[in-house]
Amino acid sequence: MQKLEEILQEFKDGGKSMREMLDYLEKLPFEDLCFAKVDHHRCLRRGYPEVIYGESKTAEQIITIAESMAKFGTNILITRVDPQKAETIMGRIAGMVHHREARALSLRNSEADSIPQGTIHVICAGSSDLPVAEEAAVTAEFMGNKIKRNFDIGVAGLHRLLSVWDELREGSVYIVVAGMEGALPSVVAGMVKGPVIAVPTSVGYGASFGGIAALLGMLNSCSPGVSVVNIDNGFGAGYLAGVINRQSRVREEF
Amino acid sequence: MQKLEEILQEFKDGGKSMREMLDYLEKLPFEDLCFAKVDHHRCLRRGYPEVIYGESKTAEQIITIAESMAKFGTNILITRVDPQKAETIMGRIAGMVHHREARALSLRNSEADSIPQGTIHVICAGSSDLPVAEEAAVTAEFMGNKIKRNFDIGVAGLHRLLSVWDELREGSVYIVVAGMEGALPSVVAGMVKGPVIAVPTSVGYGASFGGIAALLGMLNSCSPGVSVVNIDNGFGAGYLAGVINRQSRVREEF
Amino acid sequence: MQKLEEILQEFKDGGKSMREMLDYLEKLPFEDLCFAKVDHHRCLRRGYPEVIYGESKTAEQIITIAESMAKFGTNILITRVDPQKAETIMGRIAGMVHHREARALSLRNSEADSIPQGTIHVICAGSSDLPVAEEAAVTAEFMGNKIKRNFDIGVAGLHRLLSVWDELREGSVYIVVAGMEGALPSVVAGMVKGPVIAVPTSVGYGASFGGIAALLGMLNSCSPGVSVVNIDNGFGAGYLAGVINRQSRVREEF
Amino acid sequence: MQKLEEILQEFKDGGKSMREMLDYLEKLPFEDLCFAKVDHHRCLRRGYPEVIYGESKTAEQIITIAESMAKFGTNILITRVDPQKAETIMGRIAGMVHHREARALSLRNSEADSIPQGTIHVICAGSSDLPVAEEAAVTAEFMGNKIKRNFDIGVAGLHRLLSVWDELREGSVYIVVAGMEGALPSVVAGMVKGPVIAVPTSVGYGASFGGIAALLGMLNSCSPGVSVVNIDNGFGAGYLAGVINRQSRVREEF
Amino acid sequence: MQKLEEILQEFKDGGKSMREMLDYLEKLPFEDLCFAKVDHHRCLRRGYPEVIYGESKTAEQIITIAESMAKFGTNILITRVDPQKAETIMGRIAGMVHHREARALSLRNSEADSIPQGTIHVICAGSSDLPVAEEAAVTAEFMGNKIKRNFDIGVAGLHRLLSVWDELREGSVYIVVAGMEGALPSVVAGMVKGPVIAVPTSVGYGASFGGIAALLGMLNSCSPGVSVVNIDNGFGAGYLAGVINRQSRVREEF
Amino acid sequence: MQKLEEILQEFKDGGKSMREMLDYLEKLPFEDLCFAKVDHHRCLRRGYPEVIYGESKTAEQIITIAESMAKFGTNILITRVDPQKAETIMGRIAGMVHHREARALSLRNSEADSIPQGTIHVICAGSSDLPVAEEAAVTAEFMGNKIKRNFDIGVAGLHRLLSVWDELREGSVYIVVAGMEGALPSVVAGMVKGPVIAVPTSVGYGASFGGIAALLGMLNSCSPGVSVVNIDNGFGAGYLAGVINRQSRVREEF
Amino acid sequence: MQKLEEILQEFKDGGKSMREMLDYLEKLPFEDLCFAKVDHHRCLRRGYPEVIYGESKTAEQIITIAESMAKFGTNILITRVDPQKAETIMGRIAGMVHHREARALSLRNSEADSIPQGTIHVICAGSSDLPVAEEAAVTAEFMGNKIKRNFDIGVAGLHRLLSVWDELREGSVYIVVAGMEGALPSVVAGMVKGPVIAVPTSVGYGASFGGIAALLGMLNSCSPGVSVVNIDNGFGAGYLAGVINRQSRVREEF
Amino acid sequence: MQKLEEILQEFKDGGKSMREMLDYLEKLPFEDLCFAKVDHHRCLRRGYPEVIYGESKTAEQIITIAESMAKFGTNILITRVDPQKAETIMGRIAGMVHHREARALSLRNSEADSIPQGTIHVICAGSSDLPVAEEAAVTAEFMGNKIKRNFDIGVAGLHRLLSVWDELREGSVYIVVAGMEGALPSVVAGMVKGPVIAVPTSVGYGASFGGIAALLGMLNSCSPGVSVVNIDNGFGAGYLAGVINRQSRVREEF
Repeated sequence: MQKLEEILQEFKDGGKSMREMLDYLEKLPFEDLCFAKVDHHRCLRRGYPEVIYGESKTAEQIITIAESMAKFGTNILITRVDPQKAETIMGRIAGMVHHREARALSLRNSEADSIPQGTIHVICAGSSDLPVAEEAAVTAEFMGNKIKRNFDIGVAGLHRLLSVWDELREGSVYIVVAGMEGALPSVVAGMVKGPVIAVPTSVGYGASFGGIAALLGMLNSCSPGVSVVNIDNGFGAGYLAGVINRQSRVREEF
Repeated sequence: MQKLEEILQEFKDGGKSMREMLDYLEKLPFEDLCFAKVDHHRCLRRGYPEVIYGESKTAEQIITIAESMAKFGTNILITRVDPQKAETIMGRIAGMVHHREARALSLRNSEADSIPQGTIHVICAGSSDLPVAEEAAVTAEFMGNKIKRNFDIGVAGLHRLLSVWDELREGSVYIVVAGMEGALPSVVAGMVKGPVIAVPTSVGYGASFGGIAALLGMLNSCSPGVSVVNIDNGFGAGYLAGVINRQSRVREEF
Repeated sequence: MQKLEEILQEFKDGGKSMREMLDYLEKLPFEDLCFAKVDHHRCLRRGYPEVIYGESKTAEQIITIAESMAKFGTNILITRVDPQKAETIMGRIAGMVHHREARALSLRNSEADSIPQGTIHVICAGSSDLPVAEEAAVTAEFMGNKIKRNFDIGVAGLHRLLSVWDELREGSVYIVVAGMEGALPSVVAGMVKGPVIAVPTSVGYGASFGGIAALLGMLNSCSPGVSVVNIDNGFGAGYLAGVINRQSRVREEF
Repeated sequence: MQKLEEILQEFKDGGKSMREMLDYLEKLPFEDLCFAKVDHHRCLRRGYPEVIYGESKTAEQIITIAESMAKFGTNILITRVDPQKAETIMGRIAGMVHHREARALSLRNSEADSIPQGTIHVICAGSSDLPVAEEAAVTAEFMGNKIKRNFDIGVAGLHRLLSVWDELREGSVYIVVAGMEGALPSVVAGMVKGPVIAVPTSVGYGASFGGIAALLGMLNSCSPGVSVVNIDNGFGAGYLAGVINRQSRVREEF
Repeated sequence: MQKLEEILQEFKDGGKSMREMLDYLEKLPFEDLCFAKVDHHRCLRRGYPEVIYGESKTAEQIITIAESMAKFGTNILITRVDPQKAETIMGRIAGMVHHREARALSLRNSEADSIPQGTIHVICAGSSDLPVAEEAAVTAEFMGNKIKRNFDIGVAGLHRLLSVWDELREGSVYIVVAGMEGALPSVVAGMVKGPVIAVPTSVGYGASFGGIAALLGMLNSCSPGVSVVNIDNGFGAGYLAGVINRQSRVREEF
Repeated sequence: MQKLEEILQEFKDGGKSMREMLDYLEKLPFEDLCFAKVDHHRCLRRGYPEVIYGESKTAEQIITIAESMAKFGTNILITRVDPQKAETIMGRIAGMVHHREARALSLRNSEADSIPQGTIHVICAGSSDLPVAEEAAVTAEFMGNKIKRNFDIGVAGLHRLLSVWDELREGSVYIVVAGMEGALPSVVAGMVKGPVIAVPTSVGYGASFGGIAALLGMLNSCSPGVSVVNIDNGFGAGYLAGVINRQSRVREEF
Repeated sequence: MQKLEEILQEFKDGGKSMREMLDYLEKLPFEDLCFAKVDHHRCLRRGYPEVIYGESKTAEQIITIAESMAKFGTNILITRVDPQKAETIMGRIAGMVHHREARALSLRNSEADSIPQGTIHVICAGSSDLPVAEEAAVTAEFMGNKIKRNFDIGVAGLHRLLSVWDELREGSVYIVVAGMEGALPSVVAGMVKGPVIAVPTSVGYGASFGGIAALLGMLNSCSPGVSVVNIDNGFGAGYLAGVINRQSRVREEF
Repeated sequence: MQKLEEILQEFKDGGKSMREMLDYLEKLPFEDLCFAKVDHHRCLRRGYPEVIYGESKTAEQIITIAESMAKFGTNILITRVDPQKAETIMGRIAGMVHHREARALSLRNSEADSIPQGTIHVICAGSSDLPVAEEAAVTAEFMGNKIKRNFDIGVAGLHRLLSVWDELREGSVYIVVAGMEGALPSVVAGMVKGPVIAVPTSVGYGASFGGIAALLGMLNSCSPGVSVVNIDNGFGAGYLAGVINRQSRVREEF
């Protein structure tokens, strides 16, 4: 409230007119930090890269937004772009990196602050869950986090899981991506100490109902320490993992 | 068709009248083996004990049916009887054994044939799934099978599961009972060679939706070798396990 | 545990260093038997052919996996391949057999052990359920089982069912595939002694909801001895039937 | 339209004033045949007994309605009354017959016209579906139809069904009541020529979801000639069967 | 049983050998009236035209079946054929009539018995429900029924409904087709005496959920005398209406 | 913004200290108009009576809240109170009127402004929907609106609806309450010019699924001019109708 | 009833024959105001423009209807036309305006009466909800209402919402369009006095289930004064808003 | 791995026999840290208090478990105990604190380590969500966290939310509990930097479907940084918040 006090003093001292004061107060309790029209992932707060949700946008629309963002020198992440859209965009905006598996593009205009704390583990069972897992990994990575990928672990074969147990224990946040019965987050949460972000995927057929089976499985996890994001929401999981991982530092900065 | 041939010969030879022949033929393609009104579990074939589904029946109705069955010296299993019904029935029919956890009563009038082959493993995570698991175990036991119970195993703690791995491998059929996310059958099926019968239970709250979460999880199991019965259907699982376990012998008898 | 004892002895005797012993123990409780990246049907245990779930894989991906598997001389089954993919694969890998109806390819590098016990019956009502029924039959056949197909039986016309009653009775395991109301498994289970594996199909329209009607019908079967696999999961049913049918022999081998 | 013509003539001839004519015309296109507040089963047309849906009404409310109806000498059917309500009502209105299984009461003030045509068959599997089946039977009976009950037939045991095949063929309309997988209507419709009215019941547990499984099964019947009413709607089925059975006569009367 | 008695006598008298007698008895309780592979609408009984469900069949498959049926001089109805399939079939089988709106083809090799009784009314609200309504009308027509179409009636405008009230009253069976909220059958059933067969359609968007809204509306109709068939099942409704309409005559023939 | 200007002037003139000014501004953009803890119906704006949602509150809690509200002389409406709670409350707070059918209590401490414009029509089919309809009527009445009740109108009998057509046309807003198939709002909206607020009720059984059938029917209404509130939400409908009916006056006041 | 009186007099005076009188009376209680075959949005009452629902119609069908409407000089609104259809129609009917975002076409043959009262606010969060919001805005505009669009407001960033608070307060009716969690209507309704029409959109993925999440959120709004239309039903919302906004004037005209 | 090395050395040196060594190794990779039968919340790792899920347990069962736990001096938390159970338990185990709103009991035998980092904010809208919010708060508090409660904040009244904005910004983790439309987490997440754990509650009626509406709303949150736990799972949210809040310290300890 420091700043407000000063401005009120300025007004009292005649440095601001009644009109100016009223105008100021109208906008007082907020700042429009968000880039208008940045659809789904709208309103990422300062300190994080800006993100464009590419699914329902044309290449042209994405380019327009990205160019207008680029002027401010911000880093840009574009999610859910198919290979064709990606190519068009890369042909127009220099410096874009294509994360093919993650269906994402990134542009780094300034270095992300590296986050010293912990490692975010991204775990999934196999090839079908991979795009979602990669979207999570790329998102968190882009926010400056260290990532460890384990993309070949499933509950049907405990061996692989057991062989990385020690490795897993060293993580700080866990993103566990699974389709079908969605049991992997429960098992992983039983093996580690950190928070587990479960991401159901729409992988499966028949009674998987486009990811509902996995979603319900994860919501009913018998292991405490698990929370769930939307089906196929790799971005959301990666972003949240980044938010959790930078916790301690953020508070000091406040 | 051997027998029919003989009877036709007998009729031709005058040993059977036209009336008798017609009567016989009317019943020919079937025998009414089933006790009329044995509701849900109707029609268990000869060789298995008779079963009465007690849920929607009064103690009086159960007693009437059981007494009429007892006349034939058959073994009787009564499922889904609450403690009060059980007591009433036991007060009226001598020799009934109360399986309290399984909510079942049994009466053994003749010895069940022991089945030499394998052991049926019944596995569940804990106290809440126990009644369903016990219903399965008691049913299979009643059919003459050897049962091994493991009632303290859950996916949230792999330790317990790992500690019985060798023991599990020696089983012949597996009944895996689980509520909440229903992940246990997937994990068990990844560890053993025999068929796994998964039983979802209505244990849980919120998004478990009375067992739907577990049911869907089991139907979407990423481990092959798993099939599923109805929610809370311990009887069905125990019966099916018995059918599978006696397979080889049955065929020889044919 | 025999082998562990020997290795411990070797360590005690100085044949293994502390480092080697620790390394060994870390990997002790498991062997990575499963072919990495064999998506859905991952982790079939030794003794069974390896299976590749072809649905979400490109022909190229399937060929890469199959070639790497072929090196080990294993038999290979590829499920859910459309005609075009199948042709591409057959053009590259010699010896592949195309099971057109089953949408599957198989390659037999070594003879499957024949399983002497019983016959697996695969039953469905008609042309629409056929691909799923064939997937089940081809899978079980590939595992060395004897198969009997009855693909023209439906509950709307009891005649056909009655005419094969005697034939059905001789089976050891039953795979019953049905769409729409999914009543066939209940009726079959009332006529035979062996276990019935019910496979709901997505055949139907309107209130069949992509197989949910059939799935629910089967889960609520009034005939005991029925269990259910996922909608359209012919592979799962065939595999499970094979597991059940080889039961007795497996135990002897242990 | 005969009557309207007469009244118009009367008006033209001066026998009715303009005011009277307007009043008459306001009510012209309809007659309020229905007893106000006869809740669910409101608006049974002339020729049928009046029906009171008792579920959500107190005994007092039912008595008030019934007494007011009785004044007109109509026959009365009261559905969904529990034993206690039934007793209260019978204590107050003389001549009521209690159909205990059907949870219904009836009062016959005038003879129902007997309907010569055909017999309505009411079929169900067993004790649990009985109340709904009886509600259907009592309703149709009350409308003057001849009823044949077959209350011990289920798809799990074809024998019973086959033994009554000839008897079934003689029916004119079929009400088939079933819970759990709801397969009975499909099988019956495959055996007879007349229309089948399928009534799903809420009998079952777990994945029967209060009758949804049976409802879906019936809507997806592979036998043509089947239509479905609401879960547990025995009244609706009985009423509709009566409407169909009296068809030919009704038309002549028009 | 008359006939069986005669045959037994014939056998006793030596007119039939043991082999012949056994053969006869094997097929006794049924006759395979149904054309194998006539998928969904399988098993129409004698007296009705044969029906081929065209949806999941290729033009070639339909032609093969139709040609083999044509040999017996039966009338043929083919449902769910898109314009292109229809053209191919008509190019190969002479005499086919194309019911474009109904997406059906028919071939009349012998005259259908005309059914003197009543008229079947087919009612729907507008252009979107038309294909389903026409499928119902064409099916019933093909069975020899007289049809009255009213295809421009909806609950949102009572006027049209009121203007045909008298006309409606003369019907014998009513097929009411409706999408969206599915209210039309309730309103019609309140206006007529005959049975109403309600057909929900998948017309609508959003919360119509592909016809579920209409289906539920119809199942919960507050007007008695309504029963429901599957979503978009015009064929089923037309067939059932035909079954009901020919009732009286059928019984006499028995 | 008038008032803020004055206060700023006061501050500038020294009539308010910096501390006071900061305190004032903190609360500036809002006034806590809502009574804390007025659960569901929280935050009714000035000009409307305060409302207490009684369902999940004890009589004691309701009394405490009501007494604290009464101090301000506001009018009070309490919804969802069962007869026993109502009696307790009336025994403690003088002047409460009990709307028994509506399950509501009201206390009028000051006269509601009468709203001259139009009449709100509340329409339902019968006794079961009555409590919800009455809740709507009592709520709107309490807000000062003129109400016309038509509680005996259903789609199964058009006569009643037609007989009140002219009367209906004179309304300004329509609340149409219906359970089961929920068709009444569609029919009414086709007859009137004003907006229709549809209220689905949980009346029904079986496939009504606690009001889902009615809810879906209303959302899919083929008549434009209909919008829907939550199942059984009589209060919400009454409140909204009041908001719409007072529209014109409100704007003038602004 | 004025006119009827005159006609009766005419009949009495001999100016109308009995036949003419009967004919007249048959059609008396209604006039067929609606353009036959105007599918979904059928039956808009006099005073509003006619509307054609274009989704399931070919360009040819739309042109035929529009041309026949144009003869009467009515204004025409065509909804749900994709760009290609729109172009075809515009090429054939002169004067059509293309509302590209709204996927609508309009033709103004006569001036809409301007409605002096209030402004309808149409609010949505962003680019994905825009087509539905525009459909609502264009519809209401076409009916003569003044529209204020706020298309960049979401709950994730309160700032934007707060910055337009004063502006919002001046509205008379609010159409709030939202996908995903559908929370915007609740928040807006807490800020304004007028009625809020909530429109869920199918925007989102995974557990948004094609708009169900938003629909349920809106039906459960904790803010009173909110009602809901079907998913993506921009037309319905715009139409209803127009109906509400013209309320007061309409009543005077009656 | 330190300890294993020592034991191997001991074995090599003869301090452990082969048998002892094998026994040890069998249990090596795990320690059974969990109290057998601690149902739902089974397997909390060392460092956290032990938790007993009281819902499905009798007071006697809880006492037995708690007493056996108390022997080890651990702190005990018992969730989901109704007032009567709570009283019985407190009468038998000294020192229990009753958290009435949270329906929980706690016993502190040793001091929880205080966690210096941040404050966990627990936010809900009102009285109905309170028990779940309190369960979350008590759980996190018990784990040693500092808690800030804001229990009177809802989206229908933005004022309250705005008035605590600054306070909210100082938090480290946010637990946001909401029923009905579940919009609060989206709005809060748009205002803060830390992770938001959303807890849907079963508060509401009608289309809230026992918390499904809130659950879906939260899963579809348009604000990134939100994840969701099961309906009513206050314990899970509190536990997870504790896990996140102690993150940094935990890693140092490893």
